[in-house]
Amino acid sequence: MQIPWEQRFSNQARRMKSSVIREILKHSSAPNVISFAGGLPAPEVFPLEAFKAASELVLEEAGAASLQYSTTEGFVPLREMIAEYSSQFGIRADLCNIQITSGSQQALDFLGRLFISPGDKIVVELPTYLGALQAWDAYGAEYITIPMDQHGMRTDLLEDALKQGPKFIYALPSFQNPSGVTMPLERRQQLVELADRYSVPIVEDDPYGKLRYTGENIPPILVVDQQYRQMSGDEYNGNVIYLSTFSKLLAPGIRLAWVIADKVVIAKMVQAKQGADLHTSTFNQMVAYEVARDGFIDEHNKVIRKTYGERLEVMLAALEEHFPPGVSWTRPEGGMFLWVILPERLDATELLPKAVAIHVAFVPGGPFHSDGTGANTMRLNFSNASPENIRIGIARLGKLLKAELS
Amino acid sequence: MQIPWEQRFSNQARRMKSSVIREILKHSSAPNVISFAGGLPAPEVFPLEAFKAASELVLEEAGAASLQYSTTEGFVPLREMIAEYSSQFGIRADLCNIQITSGSQQALDFLGRLFISPGDKIVVELPTYLGALQAWDAYGAEYITIPMDQHGMRTDLLEDALKQGPKFIYALPSFQNPSGVTMPLERRQQLVELADRYSVPIVEDDPYGKLRYTGENIPPILVVDQQYRQMSGDEYNGNVIYLSTFSKLLAPGIRLAWVIADKVVIAKMVQAKQGADLHTSTFNQMVAYEVARDGFIDEHNKVIRKTYGERLEVMLAALEEHFPPGVSWTRPEGGMFLWVILPERLDATELLPKAVAIHVAFVPGGPFHSDGTGANTMRLNFSNASPENIRIGIARLGKLLKAELS
Repeated sequence: MQIPWEQRFSNQARRMKSSVIREILKHSSAPNVISFAGGLPAPEVFPLEAFKAASELVLEEAGAASLQYSTTEGFVPLREMIAEYSSQFGIRADLCNIQITSGSQQALDFLGRLFISPGDKIVVELPTYLGALQAWDAYGAEYITIPMDQHGMRTDLLEDALKQGPKFIYALPSFQNPSGVTMPLERRQQLVELADRYSVPIVEDDPYGKLRYTGENIPPILVVDQQYRQMSGDEYNGNVIYLSTFSKLLAPGIRLAWVIADKVVIAKMVQAKQGADLHTSTFNQMVAYEVARDGFIDEHNKVIRKTYGERLEVMLAALEEHFPPGVSWTRPEGGMFLWVILPERLDATELLPKAVAIHVAFVPGGPFHSDGTGANTMRLNFSNASPENIRIGIARLGKLLKAELS
Repeated sequence: MQIPWEQRFSNQARRMKSSVIREILKHSSAPNVISFAGGLPAPEVFPLEAFKAASELVLEEAGAASLQYSTTEGFVPLREMIAEYSSQFGIRADLCNIQITSGSQQALDFLGRLFISPGDKIVVELPTYLGALQAWDAYGAEYITIPMDQHGMRTDLLEDALKQGPKFIYALPSFQNPSGVTMPLERRQQLVELADRYSVPIVEDDPYGKLRYTGENIPPILVVDQQYRQMSGDEYNGNVIYLSTFSKLLAPGIRLAWVIADKVVIAKMVQAKQGADLHTSTFNQMVAYEVARDGFIDEHNKVIRKTYGERLEVMLAALEEHFPPGVSWTRPEGGMFLWVILPERLDATELLPKAVAIHVAFVPGGPFHSDGTGANTMRLNFSNASPENIRIGIARLGKLLKAELS
C-alpha cells in the first residue's frame, strides 16, 4: 500500500513550515515586478572576473585537491584569512575558534542543534531575522521578545528575559535584518555585562557589519566582550558566538560563511557538520580564498558600499517624496534593508497582492515578529534594484498607500 | 562568568559523537602511509579539464546568476539532466520528485529530520554505512539490524523487524559500504514486497550503482518498486526514497547529490533544506551541469570503471597472495570497498596502530555495526591507492596479520 507520508513524519518535521519570504518571492520574480522583497545583493557588484581568474588558478594549481573531500572545519588558509580579516575590527580569534559553514543559514541551524531542545527559550529582537526563526522553530524553540527602537534592542528591558533562563540571546547589532537599525556601543556593553551576569551566551549575527555607508564603525559585540573580560592572547573563549558570511562581501551563490566562538562550541559544531554535510565545498572554499586574498575583499567592499549607499539615499529621498503622512521608516547607516511602519489599520500582507498587481513587491513585516504582531510593518530591500527602479517602485508603493489611506 | 558550554548543549548535541573514521584519517594522512582507510575517489580520475572549461563557461555565460541566491529545490537543468540520466536505469521521475542536496550526507541528515523522533526504530543492514548511523544517532534513532551474507541483506529475516514498526528500512543494495556485496534481484523484489505489505518506506542509498566492473547490472530497488506497483507515467509515488551523488561520478569536493522520492517527501525535504542551508551552491550546480551534460558522465564513467576495476583485481590478487589462512574477504563486482573478516580473537581496532606503525591504514569494522559487534572485521578501500601501493600495502598488512596469528 502507498505510504501515508504525512503520518510518518517526525515531531521536528511537523514543526517545519515553508518560508513566507520564499512563497512571496515566487510571486515577485516576474521580470516586470520591481522587487524590494528579497535580500539579494546587486548582481552588478559580483566580482565575476576575479571569480574567473580564481577558478582557473585553483584548478590549475591545487588541481585534484580542489575536487576532493576535505576537512569538516574548513580550508585552513581560508580560516587563517578570516582570522586576519576579523582582526581589522578588533576580533582576536585562533584557528580553533573558526568553523566554515555552508552559508550563515547553516550556522543558524547548527545553533538550533547545539542548544535547543523542545520548549527551550531564546531571546530575540522584535522584529528579528525570519530565517533564524524558521531554523529554530523546527527544534521547538520558544521566544522571549525584546522590543527595539531606533537604536536597536532595548537592553534596558533585557534583565527580566535573562531571569527566565534562555539558552541564548540572538542579536543582529549592525544594520539589522529586517529593521536596518544599529545598536550603539553603550547598549552593546550593557548586553555583554548582562549576558555575563546571567551566564547566557550571545549569538551575534553580523552579515552586514562591513556595509556601512555613513557614520562611525562600532565594534562587534564579540570585541566588546573581549574588552569586558580583559582578554589577551589570540584565542577567544568568551560568551559570544559570532556569525558572518561571504554572501554580502563576495557573492551568496557560493554558500560560504563562518562562525567564531569558544573552541568547545566549535568542536561541537564540527560534530554537527560531520553529520549534516561532512564539509563545505572544497572547490568553493579555495576559489573564495583566491578571490578574497591580498586585500581584494576590502577594495571590493568600496565598490559595494558606493553602490548600496547611493541606492539607500535614493530610496530615502523617494520615501520622503512619495509616502503619505502617518507612514514612518528607519534611516539605516548601512546594510541592505529599511523598515516601514504603516498606520495600525493597514495590514501589509493584505497590501502585498495589490502591490504586485502594480508591479512592485516588498516583504510584509509580520513574519519577522515571533509574537505574531507587526501586521502594519514591511521590509524594503534597497541593494538589489537600480536607482531608477527604486524611484519608480517607491512612487508606485506611495500611490498605493495614499489610495489605501484615503 | 564563563559559560559552562557542555551544560548548555541540547539533547541532540549530547547524542553527537565525532566520526571514528575522521579520527582515524587524521593518523593515516601522513604521506608515507598507504591508506585503505578513507572512501576517497582516485584523484587521477577527476575531470579537471572539464571543470576548467565548465567554470569558465558558467561565469562567462550565466554570469552573475551563477553567484546569486537560487531555489531550494536545485538548478532546474541539473534536475532535468538527473531525471534523464536516471531513466537509463529504468527510473521514471518527474522534476517534483527530485531534490538537490549538498552531498548525500545531507540527504541522510534530512531523513533523520523528516522521520526520526527519539526512540524511533530504523532497520539497517549489519554492517552498514557509519555516516548514516552518525547522522541518525543525533536524532535518537534505535536500530533493528538485519544480518548480511555474500548476497547482501538477508531479506528472509526482515519480516520480524517490520512487525516492530520501524520508520524506514535503510538499504545499500549495490556494492555496499562497507561490505562491497550486492543484493540480487530476487532479494530486492522480496524487500519491496515486504516493505509494501507492512507500509514501511525503503531508503535506497546508491552512490556506487554505476561503478560496476564485472557481472550484470541489477535494477535499483526504486525500479523494482515501480514494476511491483505497475506504475506508468513520469511521476514516482512509490515507497522508495532513492539517494545518489556526483561524488563518485565526477568529484566529491563539489558536494552535490540528489534525492528521488514521492513529491510529498520532497516537499518536506525542501522545507528542511530551507532551514538547513537555503540551497546548494548555485555555482557548483551550474558547473556540474556543464561538466556532466551531453553524455560526458557516461564517457567519464568508463575511465573510472577501468581504473577502479583494475585496482580491485590487484587488491584481490594481493589478498590471495599475502593474507594468512583463517582470514576471509568479500569479492565485490563494483564500488570502492571490500570487507575482511579476521579470526574472532583478533580486534581490528587494536591492530590499527600497529598497521599505521608499518605505514598502512584501514578502517576497523566495529563502528559499522550498530549493535556493537564486528570487532574482528575491517574495511579496505581500493579506489584511492595506486596498483603499486595496493600491492605493497596489502603485503604489509598480510605480514602483520601473520605475525598476530602466529
